[in-house]
Amino acid sequence: MKKAAAFLGIGTHNVYFVKADDQGKMIPEDLEIQVQKAKEEGAVPFLVAATSGTTVLGAFDPLDGIADICEKYNLWFHVDGSWGGSALLSRKYRKLLHGISRADSVAWNPHKMLMAGIQCCALLVKDNTDLLKRCHSAEASYLFQQDKFYDVRYDTGDKSIQCSRRADAFKFWMMWKALGTIGLEERVNRTLALSKYLATEIKKRDGFELLWEPEYANICFWYIPPSLREMDKKGPEYWQRLNQVAPTIKERMMKKGNMMIGYQPHRDKVNFFRQIVISPQVSREDMDFVLDEIELLGRDL
Amino acid sequence: MKKAAAFLGIGTHNVYFVKADDQGKMIPEDLEIQVQKAKEEGAVPFLVAATSGTTVLGAFDPLDGIADICEKYNLWFHVDGSWGGSALLSRKYRKLLHGISRADSVAWNPHKMLMAGIQCCALLVKDNTDLLKRCHSAEASYLFQQDKFYDVRYDTGDKSIQCSRRADAFKFWMMWKALGTIGLEERVNRTLALSKYLATEIKKRDGFELLWEPEYANICFWYIPPSLREMDKKGPEYWQRLNQVAPTIKERMMKKGNMMIGYQPHRDKVNFFRQIVISPQVSREDMDFVLDEIELLGRDL
Repeated sequence: MKKAAAFLGIGTHNVYFVKADDQGKMIPEDLEIQVQKAKEEGAVPFLVAATSGTTVLGAFDPLDGIADICEKYNLWFHVDGSWGGSALLSRKYRKLLHGISRADSVAWNPHKMLMAGIQCCALLVKDNTDLLKRCHSAEASYLFQQDKFYDVRYDTGDKSIQCSRRADAFKFWMMWKALGTIGLEERVNRTLALSKYLATEIKKRDGFELLWEPEYANICFWYIPPSLREMDKKGPEYWQRLNQVAPTIKERMMKKGNMMIGYQPHRDKVNFFRQIVISPQVSREDMDFVLDEIELLGRDL
Repeated sequence: MKKAAAFLGIGTHNVYFVKADDQGKMIPEDLEIQVQKAKEEGAVPFLVAATSGTTVLGAFDPLDGIADICEKYNLWFHVDGSWGGSALLSRKYRKLLHGISRADSVAWNPHKMLMAGIQCCALLVKDNTDLLKRCHSAEASYLFQQDKFYDVRYDTGDKSIQCSRRADAFKFWMMWKALGTIGLEERVNRTLALSKYLATEIKKRDGFELLWEPEYANICFWYIPPSLREMDKKGPEYWQRLNQVAPTIKERMMKKGNMMIGYQPHRDKVNFFRQIVISPQVSREDMDFVLDEIELLGRDL
C-alpha cells in the first residue's frame, strides 16, 4: 500500500497503518480509531485495504467487521485476495473470506494457488458504471476505432493502465474450462490438506517448531539444530544463532540445487522458514523430503 | 503521456503538448515555447518525452535538437523508443535515433520489431545511483532478505513497480544469444526492406495511394475503390465515402479470417490503412497478397 501510494502521487505519509493481532489479522476496532485519527488530522479517508491471505502468515482479515466500518464512514472497501482469494473456490474453505461480497473491489491472482501461468491477475469491481474506462481511458483516436462492426465496449485496451498487453485472462479461462469448478476446488483442497500434513509432521519431529497453527497454506517453522536444543531459550545467544540457521540452510539448498524455501523474520520472531505448497503434483513424500533435507543440511549448525 | 500523468497523480492539465510537423516529428522550437509558457504559468517543467517511432506514422523526433533544450532548461530527457528503438541494432538505420545517447531514460520494446515474445519492455536509465531502488523500494522486510550469501543488489523485486513478475528480460537475452547482434540487425534491415517494397508496390498500383514516404516500417495508404476514382477529390462526399472504405474492408477481412490490418484517421486525413511488417518470415509475395486481397475485398465499394 505504501508503494502504491507513492506511485500514485498520494504520498506514503497519507497511508494509515491499522494494527493486526497475533495471527496477523486486522483489528477492526483499530481501523475505526485510525479513520477517526485521520479525520481529526484534516485528512479525507477514502479507501480501506484488507487482505485475504497475507504473504507470511496466510492470515485472513475479518472482512465483515471491516465492511461495517467502511459502510459507516463511506469508504471504498478493497480486498487484496491475491493469495487467499482462491479459497473461494472451495466449499470447505470459502468461509475464510466471509464478507467479501461487501467489497467494492477485489484483487485476485489465479497464478498463485490455482497455478494459472504467471502472470494472471484479476481486478474485480462491483461498479457497473464503466469505472475502468472512466479512470483510465485516454481515448487515443489513433488506436481505438469506434467505427467497427462489433460492440466496441468489449475492447479492453483503453480501459487498462497498460495499452497492449498479454491476454492473461485467457489462460485462466482455458484452465477453468479444462478442469471445471470442481477441479479447481480439488486443487485448493488438496493444497490445504498437504499443508496440514506438513504442519502435523513438523509438530511430530524433534528439532522442528511450528510458529503458528496454519489457517491456510503458509507453514511457518524453525529448524533447531541439535547444538541449540540444549541451550537456554531465553538467552540472546540462542536467538542470534537461530536467526542464522534458515539463511545458512537456504544457502546450502541453493548450492546443492534441490530445494528453495523462503525465510524471513516477523515481528519478534527471528528468521524462520515459510513453506508454501501449491502444486497439485506434490505428494506427502515430497513433504517428508523437505523436512529430511532441512535436517540433513542443518544438523551440524 | 496524458494517461501516465493521470495515473501518477500529476494531472492531465499539467501535460504540455508540443507541436509536430507534417511528418509527425516534434518541432524543437515549439518545445522551447512550451517550456517558457509553462514557466510563465508558474509551473515547473521537469521532463520532456520524445518519441522515436510514433505509432501511426513511425516518425522519429529530432533528438539532438530536443536534447539541446533539455540541457538548457535542465529537464529530464526521456525517449520513448518502444517501437523505433530497435533501429539502433541496424548500422544502416541507427541514424534515425541520432542524439539518443543524450537521453536520461529510454523505453524500448524488444517485443515489437525484434519479435521477442510479448511482453518484453525495457526501461534504460543513464543514472548509476540506484535510481529505481530509490524510487520504488518499499523495503518490505518480509520479502527481501538482506542476509543472503550473494550480492543482493542483483535482486530486482524491490526495484520495480510490480513485485513478483515474469522474467521478461530472459526471453530477449536468450534470443540475442541465439541470433547474435548481426542476426538482430538482419531482422531490422529485412523488415525495413520489405516495408520499402510494399510502399513501392503501392505507388505502382492503380487505386492505391501512399500517404507519406515511409521513414520506418509504417506504411500508410488509402485504397480507393473504382467507384471513387472518377469523383471530385475536393468534394465532401468523396472524403466521407473514402472514410468508410478501410473499416468496411477490415470488417470483411475479419469475417473472412485471412488478414488483419489496422486503420485510423490522422489529423485531416480520413481513415487509412497502416500496414506494419515485422515478421522475418514474411516475403514479398505476402506483401503482394495484402494488396491483392484489399483490392478483392473492396473493389465493389
